[in-house]
Amino acid sequence: MQVYLDNNATTMVDPLVVEVMQPFFSELYGNPNSLHKFGTATHPAISKAIDQVYTALNASDSDDIVFTSCATESNNWVLQSIVTDLVRHGEKNHIVTTEVEHPSILSTCRFLEDQGVKVTYLPVNDQGIVEVSTVKSFITDKTALVSVMWASNETGMINPIKEIGEICKAKGVLFHTDAVQAVGKIPVDLQDVHVDFLSMSAHKFHGPKGIGALYIKNSQKLTPLLHGGEHMGGRRSGTLNVPFIVGMGKAIELATANIKETGAKIRAKRDRLEDAILELSDTFVVGDRENRTPNTILISIKGVEGEGMLWDLNNGQIGASTGSACASEDLEANTVMLAIGADNELAHTGIRLSLSRFTTDSEIDYTITHFKSAVLRLRAISSSFAKVQPTPGGEVQECELHHH
Amino acid sequence: MQVYLDNNATTMVDPLVVEVMQPFFSELYGNPNSLHKFGTATHPAISKAIDQVYTALNASDSDDIVFTSCATESNNWVLQSIVTDLVRHGEKNHIVTTEVEHPSILSTCRFLEDQGVKVTYLPVNDQGIVEVSTVKSFITDKTALVSVMWASNETGMINPIKEIGEICKAKGVLFHTDAVQAVGKIPVDLQDVHVDFLSMSAHKFHGPKGIGALYIKNSQKLTPLLHGGEHMGGRRSGTLNVPFIVGMGKAIELATANIKETGAKIRAKRDRLEDAILELSDTFVVGDRENRTPNTILISIKGVEGEGMLWDLNNGQIGASTGSACASEDLEANTVMLAIGADNELAHTGIRLSLSRFTTDSEIDYTITHFKSAVLRLRAISSSFAKVQPTPGGEVQECELHHH
Repeated sequence: MQVYLDNNATTMVDPLVVEVMQPFFSELYGNPNSLHKFGTATHPAISKAIDQVYTALNASDSDDIVFTSCATESNNWVLQSIVTDLVRHGEKNHIVTTEVEHPSILSTCRFLEDQGVKVTYLPVNDQGIVEVSTVKSFITDKTALVSVMWASNETGMINPIKEIGEICKAKGVLFHTDAVQAVGKIPVDLQDVHVDFLSMSAHKFHGPKGIGALYIKNSQKLTPLLHGGEHMGGRRSGTLNVPFIVGMGKAIELATANIKETGAKIRAKRDRLEDAILELSDTFVVGDRENRTPNTILISIKGVEGEGMLWDLNNGQIGASTGSACASEDLEANTVMLAIGADNELAHTGIRLSLSRFTTDSEIDYTITHFKSAVLRLRAISSSFAKVQPTPGGEVQECELHHH
Repeated sequence: MQVYLDNNATTMVDPLVVEVMQPFFSELYGNPNSLHKFGTATHPAISKAIDQVYTALNASDSDDIVFTSCATESNNWVLQSIVTDLVRHGEKNHIVTTEVEHPSILSTCRFLEDQGVKVTYLPVNDQGIVEVSTVKSFITDKTALVSVMWASNETGMINPIKEIGEICKAKGVLFHTDAVQAVGKIPVDLQDVHVDFLSMSAHKFHGPKGIGALYIKNSQKLTPLLHGGEHMGGRRSGTLNVPFIVGMGKAIELATANIKETGAKIRAKRDRLEDAILELSDTFVVGDRENRTPNTILISIKGVEGEGMLWDLNNGQIGASTGSACASEDLEANTVMLAIGADNELAHTGIRLSLSRFTTDSEIDYTITHFKSAVLRLRAISSSFAKVQPTPGGEVQECELHHH
């Protein structure tokens, strides 16, 4: 059996999505910008896809949703262009974000710091959540943008986006959220929250890799990142990736049509897996379940190096992660675990398991069995675990997460 | 019969390309950055695709070829990051380009002018070609970059890239070429020419829309445009679009394997079509055939509005263009024709016909018949053509292209 439990890194494209994309490779292959029938023949499908995205997010007709090549592009676009519009050509000089954002936010912020922009990286609490009061206290008259992820790719923890949006609105500061891990996993209703910009990526909800979008409230000004042939109303140039636009529309429709019911089913499997692992001694899951995306577990297995555990799971045909795939080629400690206050040793023991609607009960059964035996096996050869075997009635203080 | 003669706008994805992409949607769907088997299972195909691109361009191992979402991104990347590296953080302030570049160059240059960069837009001669002496005369000590397209999307005319590269090398100025209309149409040998950066796009050579690349000579410094998870050696972040990378590799292999023979076959069809249209009075083709990509004709039909002709061809199931699809939604005069010295009236009569290796002889026959009867029909109702009917032995001076 093969078990893919790395759905926060990427997902399988739903076969129904693959199917709707097919005609747009070799049959309806025209450039949508062309005036002839080969071009205009693509328009109904593109319009449908746009409608599917608006419907899924409950966006208004007055809002813009612009297709991009990925959420990394969407995130770069917002941050870099806010600097163009409000810092270089304006009176602001400050961006507020968090310590636990995706690398596409953090690296862009570091690049912008090199360009003279001031960036505040907010801490998170021991649940991995940024607190509303923290956001509020760091906004100044010079703040151009607040950027806080909706849900964490690492922990699945859900930030108080509605409350942060209200603060930003009240203070007249633009608000961006990287919603890559929220869209398709939990309800995202843009009538219910105030966000100016929202990034998303199709390959996180069973659409293809290489297509994302940026939501722009009230079609407000934002200088393009990609200048050129004025595609998409001049907001993002580059020939439209028709098959993937069509695929993204279908994927978001499938992912959100029954999101509460689907989420509950995924969560039941997730909780069963989580409960089973927690039966092992000295295991710690980050964040309470209520504020977490229903598919995600970030768990520390005391005494078991994350990389070793990954290797063992991989030998059992189980795909998991020590954290963001965007940073997983290096063997550093999980930065999000460090941010929530884990010590360095514990931050090396994180394993992220992320399910999808395609995860089956038998895959969970198989994973529980394999995971438990892997932990026992790895702990048996672990020098660090031997040292911290709990003494009778004793506490293992150094394992506990603490707020820093 | 349907005839697609707008292959400079976009192309049909070769069914062989569609085939090789299929496994990477729902079977081998892992994130290449993941450490587990689902991720690493994609690596051989990605490596193969990279090899295919290097081979097609005869690039060196010491060069970088970085996948992007399209040539618009590649072009924006080079121009914007050269400004970051050499203008904002350096001593230069000047970019040299041409009047006839693709909108993704021209719009980016206009954006950079707003940021304080000086841009020189070189004129072209009556063949639509930028002359080497012109390039040479405008390079100054402050010039950071010269950007000249290899072949024109509008006319197919091929610029003297080898000579321009030598000048840039001698003067110590970086050289970029937008080779979107060259790669897959004419031999591009990076051992034979000196270019620092080269942009390309898969959908111009029967690969998918939404994937391109940037060649970077000797892996030299160029600040990323998309910051993030350090994909592709930190040069371009964003989860890799595995199916399209695989597809681009296959597409470039197919397009370049027998490029001279394939080009000769396409050219024979193109020349036959061109000769037939030129049998009509008062028709003008831009540029000589020897210096043109083998698939392209930009032709003016005196007295026939380009848009009207497009409409008529469209009714005959023939897809053509009045010029760049990236600008074809507006009814403005063809800017490239204006740049080569056509008057405004003539610039409204341009029709671009662009063939591919899939264009058949019977499609050419059908097009010749339909095209000729369309011209006769449209001229019969044209007020402007009536005015310029040649008097016996008379000349129609205002129709001729002149160098401005």
